[in-house]
Amino acid sequence: MPFELTILGSSSATPTYNRHPTAQVLNIRERFFLIDCGEGTQTQLVRYKLKYNRISHVFISHLHGDHYLGLMGLLSTMHLQGRTNELHLFAQQELMDIIELQLRLSQTILRYNLIFHPVKNYTGTLIHEDEDVTVWTIVLNHRVPCTGFLFREKPKPRKLLISKMQQFNIPFKHFAGIKNGSDYEDDFGKVIKNKDLTISSGLPRSYAFCSDTLFNEQLADEVKNVDLLYHEATFMHDLVDRAKATFHSTCIEAATIAKNATVGKLIIGHFSARYKNLSPLLSEAKTVFENTELALEGNKFIVAEKQETI
Amino acid sequence: MPFELTILGSSSATPTYNRHPTAQVLNIRERFFLIDCGEGTQTQLVRYKLKYNRISHVFISHLHGDHYLGLMGLLSTMHLQGRTNELHLFAQQELMDIIELQLRLSQTILRYNLIFHPVKNYTGTLIHEDEDVTVWTIVLNHRVPCTGFLFREKPKPRKLLISKMQQFNIPFKHFAGIKNGSDYEDDFGKVIKNKDLTISSGLPRSYAFCSDTLFNEQLADEVKNVDLLYHEATFMHDLVDRAKATFHSTCIEAATIAKNATVGKLIIGHFSARYKNLSPLLSEAKTVFENTELALEGNKFIVAEKQETI
Repeated sequence: MPFELTILGSSSATPTYNRHPTAQVLNIRERFFLIDCGEGTQTQLVRYKLKYNRISHVFISHLHGDHYLGLMGLLSTMHLQGRTNELHLFAQQELMDIIELQLRLSQTILRYNLIFHPVKNYTGTLIHEDEDVTVWTIVLNHRVPCTGFLFREKPKPRKLLISKMQQFNIPFKHFAGIKNGSDYEDDFGKVIKNKDLTISSGLPRSYAFCSDTLFNEQLADEVKNVDLLYHEATFMHDLVDRAKATFHSTCIEAATIAKNATVGKLIIGHFSARYKNLSPLLSEAKTVFENTELALEGNKFIVAEKQETI
Repeated sequence: MPFELTILGSSSATPTYNRHPTAQVLNIRERFFLIDCGEGTQTQLVRYKLKYNRISHVFISHLHGDHYLGLMGLLSTMHLQGRTNELHLFAQQELMDIIELQLRLSQTILRYNLIFHPVKNYTGTLIHEDEDVTVWTIVLNHRVPCTGFLFREKPKPRKLLISKMQQFNIPFKHFAGIKNGSDYEDDFGKVIKNKDLTISSGLPRSYAFCSDTLFNEQLADEVKNVDLLYHEATFMHDLVDRAKATFHSTCIEAATIAKNATVGKLIIGHFSARYKNLSPLLSEAKTVFENTELALEGNKFIVAEKQETI
């Protein structure tokens, strides 16, 4: 089952060199989460063949335009294309003021149900849960209230070893319990351990999205051991003072978080318009954390199924 | 001196087939007017090498997203790029509510002076005048308040015939008056007609932008004899009922306005997403008004200097 991140945009506020502002789509087991929605996101979705109507949840990190100005157009296009399935939107309360004002002035009543979930600025708050996924907030430190998002796959039921079900003649009614980790006790009181009856379906995978933020060492605790970490890296480290002044991070700082959190892979993005060639940014981050990649538009980052080590 | 229209977008509300929503730049004698500003206008400006900072005036026809959702990003980018020269914005009052809310929530104070001119829905109101150009509103009939804009070049001073200045020994102090059309009377009371001393610098040129509107025959009077007319043509005429229901026009209707107004050239645009191939729309319009062209992105429409016929 997929766990796949597609980058739709990676520029900071000024779009340049054909880089679009921040937007990403995370597909966890065929649930599609849109994360930030800079201007032009709807055309980027078309470009990368991601269907609008598969998106069920939208998460907006903060109310700087390069992270949300594409949302109104996307909501409107979903409406015009006849969407009927509900859409969940997670953002700060005030985004709903912006949306409602614009809907009112354009005299639009959306055909679908837009369910708004106001996000407050608390660490580690569970804001979404379904049968496959939980989503938690991550507090960031930017010029305006800003939230990251941590997506965690839920543990999946273990796979039954059919040969063992037959060998021990286990009745069907016990299968669900065994899938969920129970041992089996037969009619004579003999216990067979779950690990002898099943194999893992894969360990839960995780993705942390850390949007615009000042470097904050404690962040590593919040994103500890995630498989995939996106952390903004607006500047190279020679401009660390500029990063501090604008509440942004450098490549070295992003990589330091990745290293301290022992993540699987780091993706850096939100590149300043001053950088045409991004190779030096990647090289700089790799000096601290080798498994780093650039958030280039159209790139897909796939987290493979992970098996338990025995 | 240029009188040149560049098309940046020509789709209706749903962006498709790489067509962007409405936006145009009109260059009149090196004054740059941005007309409507759909999502992605800032990247379209870059694509067609039109510098943000040369734009001095922005005109927004109405508050449907495909005509203004690119404005907030453009205003923000101008700010981030250090613009200091003032920007004039002409639109319905409520657009300023949208802008101010978003500026407040992003804690942005623009570095340049954004001068807002609320546009009301009256016919033929002069809303802008400078030494070269006047701009007038045109009432349109859409689902929400909607205004077109009529740009008229002012008459230019006539050019002096230097040989005649010498022949009649005309003192320099009279030159300004003669340029502005005065005859010359010499010391003996002999009058020399202006037309024998000057030639025309070209007749004033004009452009009418008729954004989303239901067909309205009276519109032809408002745009009588303009050199260039943009009129929306969302549908082909077999969908005239759909056009009526959505307060839009067909190709036949746009061309009928052009014919009745005896304009120089008609440009049709705002094409429905249902049309991938636009040739049939052009052919249909041409059955009524031959000198029609499509508003294709990147196309420039140049109105040449026009001399008086003698």
